[in-house]
Amino acid sequence: MAIRKKLKMGMVGGGPGAFIGAIHRNAALMDGLIELSAGAFSSNSEKSRQAGEELMLDPSRVYASYDEMIQKELKLPEEERIDIISIVTPNNVHFDPTKKALENGFHVVLDKPLTLNYEEAKTLYKIIKKSDKLFCLTHTYTGYPMIKQMKQMIANGDIGIIKKVYVEYPQGWLYKLLEHENNKQAEWRTDPARNGKAGCFGDIGTHAFNLAEYVTGLHVTKICADLDIKVEGRPIDDDGAVLMRFENNASGILTASQVDTGCENNLKIRVYGDKGGLEWQQEDNNSLIARWPNRPAEVWRAGTGYLGSLANENTRTPAGHPEGYIEAFANIYRNFARCIYDLRNGEEPKAEWWDFPGAEDGIRGMAFIDHVLASSESDQKWTPFIVEK
Amino acid sequence: MAIRKKLKMGMVGGGPGAFIGAIHRNAALMDGLIELSAGAFSSNSEKSRQAGEELMLDPSRVYASYDEMIQKELKLPEEERIDIISIVTPNNVHFDPTKKALENGFHVVLDKPLTLNYEEAKTLYKIIKKSDKLFCLTHTYTGYPMIKQMKQMIANGDIGIIKKVYVEYPQGWLYKLLEHENNKQAEWRTDPARNGKAGCFGDIGTHAFNLAEYVTGLHVTKICADLDIKVEGRPIDDDGAVLMRFENNASGILTASQVDTGCENNLKIRVYGDKGGLEWQQEDNNSLIARWPNRPAEVWRAGTGYLGSLANENTRTPAGHPEGYIEAFANIYRNFARCIYDLRNGEEPKAEWWDFPGAEDGIRGMAFIDHVLASSESDQKWTPFIVEK
Amino acid sequence: MAIRKKLKMGMVGGGPGAFIGAIHRNAALMDGLIELSAGAFSSNSEKSRQAGEELMLDPSRVYASYDEMIQKELKLPEEERIDIISIVTPNNVHFDPTKKALENGFHVVLDKPLTLNYEEAKTLYKIIKKSDKLFCLTHTYTGYPMIKQMKQMIANGDIGIIKKVYVEYPQGWLYKLLEHENNKQAEWRTDPARNGKAGCFGDIGTHAFNLAEYVTGLHVTKICADLDIKVEGRPIDDDGAVLMRFENNASGILTASQVDTGCENNLKIRVYGDKGGLEWQQEDNNSLIARWPNRPAEVWRAGTGYLGSLANENTRTPAGHPEGYIEAFANIYRNFARCIYDLRNGEEPKAEWWDFPGAEDGIRGMAFIDHVLASSESDQKWTPFIVEK
Amino acid sequence: MAIRKKLKMGMVGGGPGAFIGAIHRNAALMDGLIELSAGAFSSNSEKSRQAGEELMLDPSRVYASYDEMIQKELKLPEEERIDIISIVTPNNVHFDPTKKALENGFHVVLDKPLTLNYEEAKTLYKIIKKSDKLFCLTHTYTGYPMIKQMKQMIANGDIGIIKKVYVEYPQGWLYKLLEHENNKQAEWRTDPARNGKAGCFGDIGTHAFNLAEYVTGLHVTKICADLDIKVEGRPIDDDGAVLMRFENNASGILTASQVDTGCENNLKIRVYGDKGGLEWQQEDNNSLIARWPNRPAEVWRAGTGYLGSLANENTRTPAGHPEGYIEAFANIYRNFARCIYDLRNGEEPKAEWWDFPGAEDGIRGMAFIDHVLASSESDQKWTPFIVEK
Repeated sequence: MAIRKKLKMGMVGGGPGAFIGAIHRNAALMDGLIELSAGAFSSNSEKSRQAGEELMLDPSRVYASYDEMIQKELKLPEEERIDIISIVTPNNVHFDPTKKALENGFHVVLDKPLTLNYEEAKTLYKIIKKSDKLFCLTHTYTGYPMIKQMKQMIANGDIGIIKKVYVEYPQGWLYKLLEHENNKQAEWRTDPARNGKAGCFGDIGTHAFNLAEYVTGLHVTKICADLDIKVEGRPIDDDGAVLMRFENNASGILTASQVDTGCENNLKIRVYGDKGGLEWQQEDNNSLIARWPNRPAEVWRAGTGYLGSLANENTRTPAGHPEGYIEAFANIYRNFARCIYDLRNGEEPKAEWWDFPGAEDGIRGMAFIDHVLASSESDQKWTPFIVEK
Repeated sequence: MAIRKKLKMGMVGGGPGAFIGAIHRNAALMDGLIELSAGAFSSNSEKSRQAGEELMLDPSRVYASYDEMIQKELKLPEEERIDIISIVTPNNVHFDPTKKALENGFHVVLDKPLTLNYEEAKTLYKIIKKSDKLFCLTHTYTGYPMIKQMKQMIANGDIGIIKKVYVEYPQGWLYKLLEHENNKQAEWRTDPARNGKAGCFGDIGTHAFNLAEYVTGLHVTKICADLDIKVEGRPIDDDGAVLMRFENNASGILTASQVDTGCENNLKIRVYGDKGGLEWQQEDNNSLIARWPNRPAEVWRAGTGYLGSLANENTRTPAGHPEGYIEAFANIYRNFARCIYDLRNGEEPKAEWWDFPGAEDGIRGMAFIDHVLASSESDQKWTPFIVEK
Repeated sequence: MAIRKKLKMGMVGGGPGAFIGAIHRNAALMDGLIELSAGAFSSNSEKSRQAGEELMLDPSRVYASYDEMIQKELKLPEEERIDIISIVTPNNVHFDPTKKALENGFHVVLDKPLTLNYEEAKTLYKIIKKSDKLFCLTHTYTGYPMIKQMKQMIANGDIGIIKKVYVEYPQGWLYKLLEHENNKQAEWRTDPARNGKAGCFGDIGTHAFNLAEYVTGLHVTKICADLDIKVEGRPIDDDGAVLMRFENNASGILTASQVDTGCENNLKIRVYGDKGGLEWQQEDNNSLIARWPNRPAEVWRAGTGYLGSLANENTRTPAGHPEGYIEAFANIYRNFARCIYDLRNGEEPKAEWWDFPGAEDGIRGMAFIDHVLASSESDQKWTPFIVEK
Repeated sequence: MAIRKKLKMGMVGGGPGAFIGAIHRNAALMDGLIELSAGAFSSNSEKSRQAGEELMLDPSRVYASYDEMIQKELKLPEEERIDIISIVTPNNVHFDPTKKALENGFHVVLDKPLTLNYEEAKTLYKIIKKSDKLFCLTHTYTGYPMIKQMKQMIANGDIGIIKKVYVEYPQGWLYKLLEHENNKQAEWRTDPARNGKAGCFGDIGTHAFNLAEYVTGLHVTKICADLDIKVEGRPIDDDGAVLMRFENNASGILTASQVDTGCENNLKIRVYGDKGGLEWQQEDNNSLIARWPNRPAEVWRAGTGYLGSLANENTRTPAGHPEGYIEAFANIYRNFARCIYDLRNGEEPKAEWWDFPGAEDGIRGMAFIDHVLASSESDQKWTPFIVEK
């Protein structure tokens, strides 16, 4: 193997007050494959500078805009230049930096959802597909080892033909008009101009949808949605439920809410086939419950010796030493980095690494938002789910 | 108070191989207010006789039919005669014995659902309403102390205005064609002639519906259902989901299945208002989880000193000594008996006792079955939920 | 089989304000094998009369003392006479009524512990052994179906040679001097004259000890105890821990407390062998966790089809419909009654029924109390555990 | 604030096949305050070189021994030189590198326990105390946010005067002679020459002891131990229990085992005072259960807005996005780094940062091992716990 060096990453967004930027950095750094080398942390150049200083970056590589970052980094010798651009801005600033990054030869990690709207998504999808650079969309929950195990057991046929999928994402933090109380997170996430036209369903409904398709390996074919605004004065959905059918006619129920008062982030998915069932929830993320007709339920645990390759490639600690959300996130970055290395060396990456979310997840997620909004407005029960790309 | 004697009960159904009859007897007997004095345990007179013998009844009071039981008991002196008739037959034998029992002056406890179909239900509803005898429908789950506590806290406004209701009843036992394998329970429950035209939704969907209306005190006003048959060869639904709206516009999601392979009976209900949320599940029936916006979630426990009157009147053991399903059932019988005593004495029963399910629950449950089937067939998203009585 | 009639029971104690008497009645009545026919509910004859009235007994069979009950019942024709005497008084009133009941030909169910002290116990043990009547001591926790399953799996060798036993009984209700606040339960349980010289260890420590020996089938051979009084002003232990060794040299740790503030009654036992481990706790009494070296832990559940005969004979509801403390208690009464019937018919009772606690458990429990107190006072580490009978 | 740069770390140990070295690197890197710049990863120079290559270090800074690392790094300009030496070798290689690192001006992070034996510990304790460099011992479990919260609530008096402490560390991985099956971890951990004379109690018993003293703020004053070897052929304890008393006379029970077959790493601590109780376990590390006498138990959760400063300074994600073992570890590294920065700047570090385990924890842990072994051999019940330094 050729001598490797750490991959260099530049970040777009993630300045003061941002939550997800810091998580991206924890995740990218943890495994020692990636280092943070540059950043355009805010559209306010002073704020960007401050963030760079706090992060102990070389000031010459802290930029006032992603355009500047791309242009100046391109002028650096290839050895010094960043390899990856990580984009962690609000949804209205996803399309442009991703497009430019890819077109200028950088690999891209983008926080989900893909774009502000479906139209942008269709364009960006084509750009990504055309690019020879790697693209990753951080649907974080697919990075959990026991979600990987669930996917692999289903693919193996362990629970038979899938009949039923329940997926739920209950949050409670928007139980009141927090967006009027100087909460930055609440502000942009309830503002259609920055967030897109779906609120709760853009933010977390898409995660639930992505997870359901990821673990089952099945595509949704029609939906029936009932979205609502539960807090008066809010311009955007904060709650909803969607009935679904999958390509094999399995039934699905997806619920997402930001007004389930007191709830945190207990994303939960349960899948039942004609031979057994599998259940996972984020609050107990290191366990996977397997249910069977005529024998005891089992608790499969991360870090044990009896798991499949997909889980094994995505853990760090021995059983009983809990890994969590940041490690799930880090698995995505680590697999992304491993693939970059392999492709550089002309090697085919392991299937277990080549398993991070990308353009396909992105376009389907944006289509989901569009269809859910349409279905919720419709008097007709079923809205076909058709993804144009 | 006048001298009391134990109430005498006669049972219809509940012979060999029946499951629910034995539970009714455990529940009725446990608190020492009711004794089993007579029975028509099977339409097969020999089987009825055997059951009577096993139950150590006086052979002269073991009957070949409920008609015989009613006629012969009426001829006994009032002191010896049964007071209550408990009906635990398949759904096609609900209407007639209930009608005759009431019309001949007996109090009635009837296993749910009310009748075989909505038409019967409308007639029986009127008969019950006209009768001066007490009628109870055993929607067992409303008998759990922490369900009672949940109802009372919601009625008190503790969690504010209700916005969201999740109720689910996942079973897995019909994951295959058990009805072709000599399973008596599976046979009648999947036979429209004995069970009614809804399978899973007649059996357990109605329980979930009843529980949602019971704890919230709100009526459902429209529904959108997607029922399905997941096991080929079955003539009746074994799975489904229903979107609902309540009279105050709260959203509801009700799911019920008998093909969630490996699942037992973990009925679960979660209700969120604008001040907090409450969560209960049968597998942990002695706990009620209360969630709040800015303070720790709480675990309210049965048998403690801090509960309301509704829970207090429905427990027997100190905190930490679990009560279960039979006690929930016994609460219904005990409250029914307490009300009979009070009414005999010309006293108004305590509100906490006068809280067992009855005709209203019965007619709404049958309407639910009818509307769910109609909605599931419909192309229209919403079906108004209107109960004719 | 000869024609059976219900067994008639008379109760000693269990009048107004008592907790355990009511539980005994629920348990005895639930299964329809036993009826309450007589009682001496209090040493105060007026209170006894009132209790009898509330329980709707024939006033002629409500007595002022157990002596009176025994004498008058003996004069009744055998068909009317009580078969069983159930004794639910404080510990200082265990010896005498048990002795007299047995010696006068009644079967006895006695609330634990056996007697007020070890001396009484040794005498009573001999009396019970000599008697041809059945004797049962209600170590309730041995009645749980999943405890039965645990015992059977261990006896089968499923977890190999036992190496380790953890048993704990944490309560918190005596966290302050409740006995000075008019709490009747607290008063007698902290009064050596009525309770015996061990407080917490007489009340709940003995339950933990009994459970450990019951499920493992192993006897304790030496102990090292550290008891303490954690609430100033209390004359009797309210907390303690005991290191133990079993006959096969397995190690045990037993803890019991009534000052683990906020704890209810989560009795818990965990046993590990060289092939696997089993864990049970009362708060989740319908589950038994099985752990294995290189495969997922399993959750064995009451009411399922895959359990052994010992659990199967001690359940009533299908899986997922929780049974609880009263059913565990009722299992003891039901098995006791089944054995009486079989013995009457000259049949050998099933091993699964002939499995209720008795004289052996009683004498070992009283020896445990004595040895624990001695060990706690001793400077020596180990005190041999030797039971004199 | 002066311009900061990342702290440079050199690692001793952590080469191929090591588990804990990789965890240290994850933890050190995650927060972007520390970078790995050098290493002596194995006493085998080729293995060290390979490890350095895999970690993408500059080959000139990959050394064959810690002596070499210390000498060569000292020759580098201060700006390039490592600041911290992280030592992750077996216990017999703790004393010497720590001593040399500190004496040559490097800050030290050392994996626990402090040394191979108590004698070494007493010497090293003095060296650490004399040094002006920072020393940290990775008792990881003290890094969990809800452990921090527990400590702070107890210090605040929220649960009153401590009466009772339960701490347990059940593992099962050494249920058989794994050390004879080419398992590297099992080999050195059961070899007194590399591990020290206590096996289970050196490895995990000390963690449990440290945690108990950390959260309560109380010192143990006497102990009574029963250690054992449960797997024949093993030269060293693999199981044990210790009764303890604390300086305020509170009682403690500490158990640790490596033969609780099937158990993973569910370290658990429960503390009860006269006002309430607190319970934490690693398997649910983001929750802290608070129990109270007359109101519902509470579930305090990491990442929420209602926690104290000690927890708040040790979290990264919002409530419901689980952090785990690596984050707990990273908290220790982050606090260590924050203190180095502050001290460099002549500032007093925040108390919340200046809260990582150090020399005091180390010497007490080694004293614990020595006393536990002595007590276990003794016929006397209590062995006073006296720490010589």
